[in-house]
Amino acid sequence: MREAYREQLDDINGRLIGMIRKTGEQIGLATTALLEADLGAAEKVMAADSSINRDQLEIDEEVLELMATQSPVASELRIVTSALRTTSDAERMGDLAVHVAKVARMRYPDHAVPDELRETFAAMGRAAVDMSAKACEVVRARDIAAAAELAQDDNEMDHLHRSLFLVLFDDGWDRGVEVAVDIALLGRYYERFADHAVHIATNVRYLVTGEIEWADSAAGH
Amino acid sequence: MREAYREQLDDINGRLIGMIRKTGEQIGLATTALLEADLGAAEKVMAADSSINRDQLEIDEEVLELMATQSPVASELRIVTSALRTTSDAERMGDLAVHVAKVARMRYPDHAVPDELRETFAAMGRAAVDMSAKACEVVRARDIAAAAELAQDDNEMDHLHRSLFLVLFDDGWDRGVEVAVDIALLGRYYERFADHAVHIATNVRYLVTGEIEWADSAAGH
Repeated sequence: MREAYREQLDDINGRLIGMIRKTGEQIGLATTALLEADLGAAEKVMAADSSINRDQLEIDEEVLELMATQSPVASELRIVTSALRTTSDAERMGDLAVHVAKVARMRYPDHAVPDELRETFAAMGRAAVDMSAKACEVVRARDIAAAAELAQDDNEMDHLHRSLFLVLFDDGWDRGVEVAVDIALLGRYYERFADHAVHIATNVRYLVTGEIEWADSAAGH
Repeated sequence: MREAYREQLDDINGRLIGMIRKTGEQIGLATTALLEADLGAAEKVMAADSSINRDQLEIDEEVLELMATQSPVASELRIVTSALRTTSDAERMGDLAVHVAKVARMRYPDHAVPDELRETFAAMGRAAVDMSAKACEVVRARDIAAAAELAQDDNEMDHLHRSLFLVLFDDGWDRGVEVAVDIALLGRYYERFADHAVHIATNVRYLVTGEIEWADSAAGH
């Protein structure tokens, strides 16, 4: 019985990892759509989102089924909280990749991001892909040290995010209001994506230690 | 045993309602801070956020404790999913109220919202307070009809949100980039607040019917 339980837990963990991995693919492809004004990439991101939404429903169901059939002890119930929070974070990460792709599509055939901010968004895209991969690793190995690394990466993302506003609010900005609004919202999508990756690590830390240490999730821009 | 179980469920529901009610107070106060450039109100919102975060931790713990001690049948396990999703939504609603308050504080003693958009943000604030109250009612009465009403209110919020961009992107806009960026982000905070209120209703519908009907949570601006 406990053997079957362990196997089912491993299966759930594997599916969580698969779901998070998809968010990394999605934000990577969305960044390509954004930087290359690649309409096909943007539409691919939008089409793939339903698969992530489905993952959430199926994994959540599987977690509850496991709880119903295996009567876990109290400490094991943390798996429920951790897994449900994780699918919720990953689902939002998918949504945020879609938001990025939609801005690319909305401005096509123009580029939404002007040349002088191209490298910043490339860096935000790389950071997002990297953080999604690290979140996978934290879930796979229940590795608390990697969780701390994610918090560091999030600082780098915040730094990139803040640097956008320096450009937008500079007297030399001559791209107009519409581009500035796109940039501000895009910046927020990447920053929120990163927050959710950190939150996944927080979920795992909770699972391992029983303690929640909230990131300052209400930090402003 | 089942009597105690029922009582504990009622207690959890009461605490969920109390938590959601706080989000309504918070977004109402944040809107006052925004429209009146009221620094005291802004700081009150920021200070009260920790109480909402604590609610989430305590309610989540209570839900898991209930599950551990009462061995619920399979259908009752949906309560876990629904309650955990609801505390997660309400926690985010609190964060979004803080975001609004922070913009008010950042621009103080100036007004972040120019006169011509004052009425729109007042309407968004009223809609947000109203939607939070309706979410309370949906959780209290498990009222699926009220859940449908919330979706209608969300359409109104989306309409208000879109109307902001018409003003920002109009050739006559002469408030500059910084104000425009504030407005775009503020609009998004209210719109997300509303999305989470709708999501709470979706959680309750899932609890009652076992079915999830996703709102288009990745809808763009």
